[in-house]
Amino acid sequence: MASAPERGSSAAPATAAELGLMQGSPPEPSRLVTVAGWQEGPWNRWAFQHVSELVPCAVVPRGTGPVFPLPSEPEELGSTPLEGVGCADTLDDFLHESYTDGFLVLRDGRILYERYENGMRPASRHVLMSVSKSLCGVLTGGFVESGALDPDATVATYVPELWDSAYGDATISQLLDMTVSLEFNEDYADPDSEVQAQDRVAGWRPRRLEDPETSYDFLRSLRRKDEHGRAFQYCSATTDVLAWVLERVTGRRYPEVLADGLWSRIGAEHDAFVTVDRVGFAFANGGVCASLRDLARLGHLVLRGGSADAHRVCSPQWAARIREGSDPGLMAGSDFARAYPDGSYRSQWWSTGGEASAFYAVGIFGQFIWVDPGADVVIVKLSSLPKALDPVVTRDHHRAFRSVAAALA
Amino acid sequence: MASAPERGSSAAPATAAELGLMQGSPPEPSRLVTVAGWQEGPWNRWAFQHVSELVPCAVVPRGTGPVFPLPSEPEELGSTPLEGVGCADTLDDFLHESYTDGFLVLRDGRILYERYENGMRPASRHVLMSVSKSLCGVLTGGFVESGALDPDATVATYVPELWDSAYGDATISQLLDMTVSLEFNEDYADPDSEVQAQDRVAGWRPRRLEDPETSYDFLRSLRRKDEHGRAFQYCSATTDVLAWVLERVTGRRYPEVLADGLWSRIGAEHDAFVTVDRVGFAFANGGVCASLRDLARLGHLVLRGGSADAHRVCSPQWAARIREGSDPGLMAGSDFARAYPDGSYRSQWWSTGGEASAFYAVGIFGQFIWVDPGADVVIVKLSSLPKALDPVVTRDHHRAFRSVAAALA
Repeated sequence: MASAPERGSSAAPATAAELGLMQGSPPEPSRLVTVAGWQEGPWNRWAFQHVSELVPCAVVPRGTGPVFPLPSEPEELGSTPLEGVGCADTLDDFLHESYTDGFLVLRDGRILYERYENGMRPASRHVLMSVSKSLCGVLTGGFVESGALDPDATVATYVPELWDSAYGDATISQLLDMTVSLEFNEDYADPDSEVQAQDRVAGWRPRRLEDPETSYDFLRSLRRKDEHGRAFQYCSATTDVLAWVLERVTGRRYPEVLADGLWSRIGAEHDAFVTVDRVGFAFANGGVCASLRDLARLGHLVLRGGSADAHRVCSPQWAARIREGSDPGLMAGSDFARAYPDGSYRSQWWSTGGEASAFYAVGIFGQFIWVDPGADVVIVKLSSLPKALDPVVTRDHHRAFRSVAAALA
Repeated sequence: MASAPERGSSAAPATAAELGLMQGSPPEPSRLVTVAGWQEGPWNRWAFQHVSELVPCAVVPRGTGPVFPLPSEPEELGSTPLEGVGCADTLDDFLHESYTDGFLVLRDGRILYERYENGMRPASRHVLMSVSKSLCGVLTGGFVESGALDPDATVATYVPELWDSAYGDATISQLLDMTVSLEFNEDYADPDSEVQAQDRVAGWRPRRLEDPETSYDFLRSLRRKDEHGRAFQYCSATTDVLAWVLERVTGRRYPEVLADGLWSRIGAEHDAFVTVDRVGFAFANGGVCASLRDLARLGHLVLRGGSADAHRVCSPQWAARIREGSDPGLMAGSDFARAYPDGSYRSQWWSTGGEASAFYAVGIFGQFIWVDPGADVVIVKLSSLPKALDPVVTRDHHRAFRSVAAALA
């Protein structure tokens, strides 16, 4: 069924079409993508552009305002040499090898390079995985700015039901910066991990009988580990608690909050989607699906201090908070700290710290918004890598982005 | 929880917001809309604008072409007197009473009247129910025109698996005009009907253990009754067989066929959606969700003989086929024939026949594209009526549309 890849390299990842995924009426069982395995390769080659066909989704409307223009000024970036990237010598080789679905380089608001692979098109909505978290982080800024949300208040102030969970006495700032300490196994490949249980409750994997009924119930079930605020603990549930807080602050559902507070303000070309569970709670930590250019718009606006032209997503102070990161000491002992001794996580964005400081949003299987203020560059990459996390692949992505930014600086 | 309706009439249907549907984090159980009951009132007040949150949906992209402009020339149509409508004296009263979500009157391509209720907005995608069939009917014309599809060929020519089903020796024309004879109970309220089984397999209702795995399997299971071509038999499965044929003719999935062959050609403002089952088969007979204005565009193009300006959806011959209807004798003995002795069903559209002939697309719970060639008027109404079908309510809708068209003629 799968025809031979047309490209030169034998290592070229097969596309969804080449694999015959979801082709045929009906598709052969061996080509069928289901909710049971869609996140892993090779199924994700098809699934990441078709999430709404697997998991129910709410629409996050773009609104009725004008589209933020992104003029195109193509540059020959494909042959940019990459430094220290194991799998490729040039940018094009790297994109070729790294299961790229969409890739875009923006400098000073102009598209220098834009590429679609594996059936992706400008209007395709691709799942963002944990890049979704960073959307929530920008969105939250507006409520802090307006005074509706006190970053020093506890979660239980807004969501009393969470009082006796891990989150009850955590502050909003601790949610934002992921310094809530809880019993939570974020191992995406472990079926007994909390993160897989969270997926099941969200409709991202087949349910087990003993699973909590709703994501709200799941979040209430989580237990505290140590004192909050002492160390970074990356935890997908923490973002969903932040989304729950925003629902309570606004009295509205998260998809509406995200639309009104963020998506309708970036001059998006396309509506976004976000997956919802059986009671309509959005998967704020990973379930947003959006188009490539719209992510570039968001990155550009944050890079510009939260606003450009008529578009404004957050205050300059909030954008600076994201850009400047937080205390690197909170990351002590982590793999991230070894790569970036001055790096940190703030307001749901990563900051590399150091001399050529960049900040970025990242999601499993290769989703990135990489922002390099020194080069005035935003790089967006959407991918369907075969594995959720691979340290070497992650490192290569960072190096590739740095090489591109350096070539443009 | 539900606050009192603000309107004057005590009979005013409560909106989703007034009912508190899906409000709260989490929603109270009594306010929760689920796949088990979303089609019926009052749940449909919320559900019909949020189908993608209940049933997985494929995107039907609008494409990249220009939007078909619909200039606005407002007229005071709200006070139009209605003839013979039991529940209301004027158009506004009627819209008020009849669970309207969206309503639009187009004359000569100009919007004379446009109204949104119950939280609907211009960008909201509302479920079309069997108006979806009429989209499939227009779409099919292109394949007949190109010669890819022979209207006299049998279904088994294209889908051999259907050979020993009701559909094997039915012709494509018989599918289009619903003159396939089969054992099929289309009673939407009967849990043991075939139409509810079809819903369950499509993901529109909770499954039963004994249900076929896929919609394809369900269609194969249907059995012939009498000779085909002798009488009209309205059957939702028949449209899905037509969609299956189109998948085989093109080698593509129905959402893609619909996008390339129809939706990208009408100058749509918004992507449409269509629900899909667990193997990705679209619910062509009822699962399309679209915006109000985009339906007006489609109606206008069919009224204009299939094309206007740069937009073309079908040949003039195909549009004439829809407009002129077929043999009224095929409807003998039906309720429809009593209302419209010269009426018929052709290419998935209804035709009233007679002097002031109109043709229309209609779906349960109050979905309409009503086209009156004499008045050069297209009327679109999207609703969330409490019951699937009610003869008096249907009659009142027809009379209301006729009164509006007459006032504009």
